[in-house]
Order: sequence, then C-alpha cells, then structure tokens
Amino acid sequence: MKKNKQIQEWAAIWREGRTIFIIDQTKLPFNLEIVELRSYIETANAIRDMLLRGAGTIGVAAGYAMAQAFAEYSTIKELEKAKLYIESSRPTAQNLFYATNRVYEEARNAENSDKKAFETADQILHEDEKHSRIMGELGAELVKDGFRILTHCNAGKLAIQGWGSALAPVYVAHKQGKNIFVYADETRPRLQGAQLTAWELHQAGIPHAIIADNAAGYYMLQKKIDIVFVGADRIARSGDVGNKIGTYEKAVLAKENGVPFYVVAPCSTIDFSCTCGADIPIEVRSPDEIKKTGNMLIANPESDAFNPAFDVTPARYITGIITEKGIHKPEDIHTLQ
Amino acid sequence: MKKNKQIQEWAAIWREGRTIFIIDQTKLPFNLEIVELRSYIETANAIRDMLLRGAGTIGVAAGYAMAQAFAEYSTIKELEKAKLYIESSRPTAQNLFYATNRVYEEARNAENSDKKAFETADQILHEDEKHSRIMGELGAELVKDGFRILTHCNAGKLAIQGWGSALAPVYVAHKQGKNIFVYADETRPRLQGAQLTAWELHQAGIPHAIIADNAAGYYMLQKKIDIVFVGADRIARSGDVGNKIGTYEKAVLAKENGVPFYVVAPCSTIDFSCTCGADIPIEVRSPDEIKKTGNMLIANPESDAFNPAFDVTPARYITGIITEKGIHKPEDIHTLQ
Repeated sequence: MKKNKQIQEWAAIWREGRTIFIIDQTKLPFNLEIVELRSYIETANAIRDMLLRGAGTIGVAAGYAMAQAFAEYSTIKELEKAKLYIESSRPTAQNLFYATNRVYEEARNAENSDKKAFETADQILHEDEKHSRIMGELGAELVKDGFRILTHCNAGKLAIQGWGSALAPVYVAHKQGKNIFVYADETRPRLQGAQLTAWELHQAGIPHAIIADNAAGYYMLQKKIDIVFVGADRIARSGDVGNKIGTYEKAVLAKENGVPFYVVAPCSTIDFSCTCGADIPIEVRSPDEIKKTGNMLIANPESDAFNPAFDVTPARYITGIITEKGIHKPEDIHTLQ
Repeated sequence: MKKNKQIQEWAAIWREGRTIFIIDQTKLPFNLEIVELRSYIETANAIRDMLLRGAGTIGVAAGYAMAQAFAEYSTIKELEKAKLYIESSRPTAQNLFYATNRVYEEARNAENSDKKAFETADQILHEDEKHSRIMGELGAELVKDGFRILTHCNAGKLAIQGWGSALAPVYVAHKQGKNIFVYADETRPRLQGAQLTAWELHQAGIPHAIIADNAAGYYMLQKKIDIVFVGADRIARSGDVGNKIGTYEKAVLAKENGVPFYVVAPCSTIDFSCTCGADIPIEVRSPDEIKKTGNMLIANPESDAFNPAFDVTPARYITGIITEKGIHKPEDIHTLQ
C-alpha cells in the first residue's frame, strides 16, 4: 500500500510511470486490495466495473486512462477511439468527460504528447487535492472542540483526492487536535456510510459510530449532533443540491432541530445549466439493491421495490455550501459562474 | 394453513382445543411455517425465541400459555411457577403481564378452571380483533380513493389480531374497494417493513412497494404520499409516541410537507404513568443488527455501531391518534384515563 504521508497514509488512486494504482473499492471494507492498471483499457474497465467510484476519483482515473492511450497510440484515429471507449465507461459522470477532454486537448498538439498527457492528468489530481484541502480548512473553522458531526454516504478520500469533500472538514478538525465524534449514516441501500466512510474514519483514528439512517433524527432530537456535512453530486444555480438518497431527510431534520447543515463540494459540481433542483435528473436503480444483500434475499420476494439513488435538497434547508472559493449562502451560488 | 375468512385468509395465532398454532415469524417472508405449541413451556419458549412478535400477538400467546398451564397443572404452586416462566419470556412486554394476570385471576377460582382459562385467553384475542376492526374503520374514513399511504415497521395482522393497528385502515380501505398504494419503509435495521409488512400486503393483494427508509422524504417532497399510518409501542399522557426507530424522522418530514401523520394503537398502548416522551425508556440493541445481515458482515468490522431500537415522536408532529375509542388529538390522550 502506498504511503502518502502528506494526505494521511493512503490514497484512492496514484501513478508510477505509466501504471495507475487504485484501491479496489468493491472489496472495501473487508479487503484492502491494490489493483495495477497497465493500459487505458484496464483503467477504463476499472471505471466501468466500479472498482473505483466518486466524482473526483472517476475524473482522475479517466484522465490517466487518456494519458495511457497517448502512451500506447499515436494516430488521431486510435486516440479518438480510445477516448470514446473511456467515455463509455460511466456515461453520466461529468468529471469523466472533463478529464478526457482536457488531457486530449492539451496533449494532442504537444511535442512530447504522452508526457504532456500524464502531466495534465497529474494536474487534475493535484487540483482536486488542493480544492479538497481548502474546503477542509474552511469547513474545519465551523467545527468546535467537542463537536459531534453527522455525515451521509461517502464523500471522503475515496471519492475526491486529498481529504474528500464532506469528510475534508472532519479530517482537518481531527488533525487540528479537536476532539470530535462522527455519526456515519449507514446509507441504505448501498451502505457507503457503513462500508466506506466507516473504513476511512477507522484508518484515520477518528472516533465514530455507524448508525441506521433511521437513527439520525433521534440523535438530533437528543441534541447529540452539532453539525452536518454532506457532499453533492450536482448543485443547481438556485443552490438546490442533488445528492445521495436520504440527504433531503437529514437536511429537514437538521433545520427542525437547529443543527447547521453544510454541503461541501468543489465548484466543478455546480451545474449552471440547471436552473433549480427540478432540473436535476434522478437516477432510479435496480430494486435488487433494496431486496438483496450480496446474493441473499432480505425482503419479501414477490414485492416490488422503488430505488431512487438520489434526492434533491431545496436550498432553504442548507445553511451553507463550502467550495474551494469560500462558504456561500445557497442562494449566492449563481454568482460563482 | 388456517383459513380465517372473516379476517382475511390467515391469522398470526389461533387455538384448536389445547393446542396453539402460530406463524413462525422468524421464517417470514421466505417460508410460511405453522408451529404447533402443545404445552405452556412450548408456547412460552416460542415467545422467548421470538417465533412470534408484536405487542398484541405476544399478549394473546401469553394468555394461551397460562391457559395451557391450567390444563397441565392444578396446584397453586405449579401454576405460579408456570406463570413466572411465561412472564420471563419477554420481560419488557406490557401485554404479556396483562394477559397472564387476567387469565390467572379469572381462572383460578373458577369451577372448571382450564375451560375458563382458555375462554379468557380467547376473549383477549377477540378484544384485540374488535379494537383492530374499530381502528381500521375509523382510519379508513381518512383514506380517499387514490391515496398513497406510507407506513413504517410492521404494525399489521402479525402484530395485533384482526387487521393490526397501522395496517388496519389500509386493509379496510382496500376492502372498501378504494384504489390505494402503500409505500413500505424497509425499516432498518431489522427490516420488518421489507419482510413482514410487504409479506402481509402481498397476501392481501394490496398494491405496494418497499423503499429504503432514506426515500420516504423524497416521495413526500414529490407529493406522492397522501397520509402516513404508524403503530406505537408506548404512548405518554402528553401524546408523545414511542415507536420503532425512524418514526420520528417520518413525522417531521410529514409535517414539513403537509402530509397527515396518524398513530394507530389500542388504548392498552397508552401508559398513563408516563408524563411525557422523556419518560419512555429506549431499548438499545446489539450493534450486530446494524453490522450484520444474517451471518454476513455488511459494515466496516472495526467500527462501532449504535442501535437505538425506538424513538419518541413529540405530540406536535402527530395529526391524530386513532384508538378503539375514536380519533384523538395527541394533547387529548390524557382524557382517556
């Protein structure tokens, strides 16, 4: 496992020469397996098969895949074929297209195109790290000693290089020596909180407990949660935030209980073409994610299940949105354009 | 399987002579197994091992166990020993003590004590059925044709004889020919919604879908839920309601979205010795219920998990409480004493 002391002891993705290394997130938290990706096809397939996930990590991997293609091929025809293959791996991931386009455009006319391609992909990774650190520093100013923090899903270092987004203030507050405690919503149906966030917090030695999503309100009413940090999948001009299903429930409960509710996400998450939350498309996933755990059926077999993967939290429930440019009122998000 | 046409096609518990029959609820929804309980010890053990669950069903079973003891023994010493054994099976279940005491007191001085004991236990069952039907009729008046109903956990026929509590208005509205649809919260961590409520609704042919607890707010915000019915484990004088963890979250979301939120529970659920919700004790159960499904670990092994099994919904979020005596404002509950 790579020792990356600067950002703690591990990273979700890194490169050595032309080889990309990733943590296989499908194996977490039970096994920590590092996978080597030696060609653009291997890297694209790792994105497609969800060995890696999280907006930032997908973007970085796509950038590296494009760079690997530059190392493998030289004709425009071959490179464009590779680009299309990479872009077909997770067709809805905005960061993926941003990264392949940027690497492709910067490298294709360069003298040493494969060197330029890898440098550009590195730069995307470093920008993510930089943004994550700024968001972490900004968010940590809101975290007082003794704070008990709620988070939902996984918006940590597995998802965005550096310190993640929602978890960035948590990592920074912990490094600052503040005594904090994190409640990690398990985040049904895919359990990213119980599996990925809990794994990250454990690695970092940050005190925490997993709770059923049902219990977050209970702890808020008991005055045991001081602040909420969540990530975002897409932010509309209005400040409405699309994020993992259940985020809206936590936001309403936080407002009702006077608990500050912050969204942490880089500016790249803002979609200025979305006027408001109603424009944010909601992916509906397979009922099997609700009805099965692994191959084990856990629900009445003959019943249908509905599985919206995301919801939209209206801006009025959000105390602030933390980006690399500052802490904004949701209604001011459009001014960042 | 017993055909009980009067209350639909099945019952959670019934007797034939001195033998008690139950549906083994630990096997649902995957297998429908009927268990015969031929002695008070077998019946008490079935309560202890949770082959049956739900306040009403536990009470009825305890009454029958006490009656079986009257059939097996005749001395006060033997009967009191049996009573203690039955009462030790689920020591926190209020209905259990009510049933054993009532059967014991009414039978012990009767001429034909075992006959009287079984009749008294039958009477407890029939009272539950009667109360359930009244609550169902009252609640169904609130359900208009086309309504989409949310429920949490299982407060159906498996839990209370007749039509259950929270599900009673659903069964009645369906029988009335109203076109209804039920969203069943899966109800983590024990999944009573996905497993038991979904099973009941399927048996009755009532259109429904299981959703992650995280998705209930999403559907409310989408204006796809018209009314919420939940059960109760204990109701305080103040009208605050203790119920399955997550009930509070749904109540807050319902109020925020203008969705009527009703608690359905017989008067026996009201604990007049509890002044307010803060007096209702909250059982905290094993972290393994969060971290495992069956024997399969589904969370980060080294992380702790907190598992409060119940929460308290303050009266201000509750539109009404439906008992066998009528539909009450929560703040009027104390007048039922």
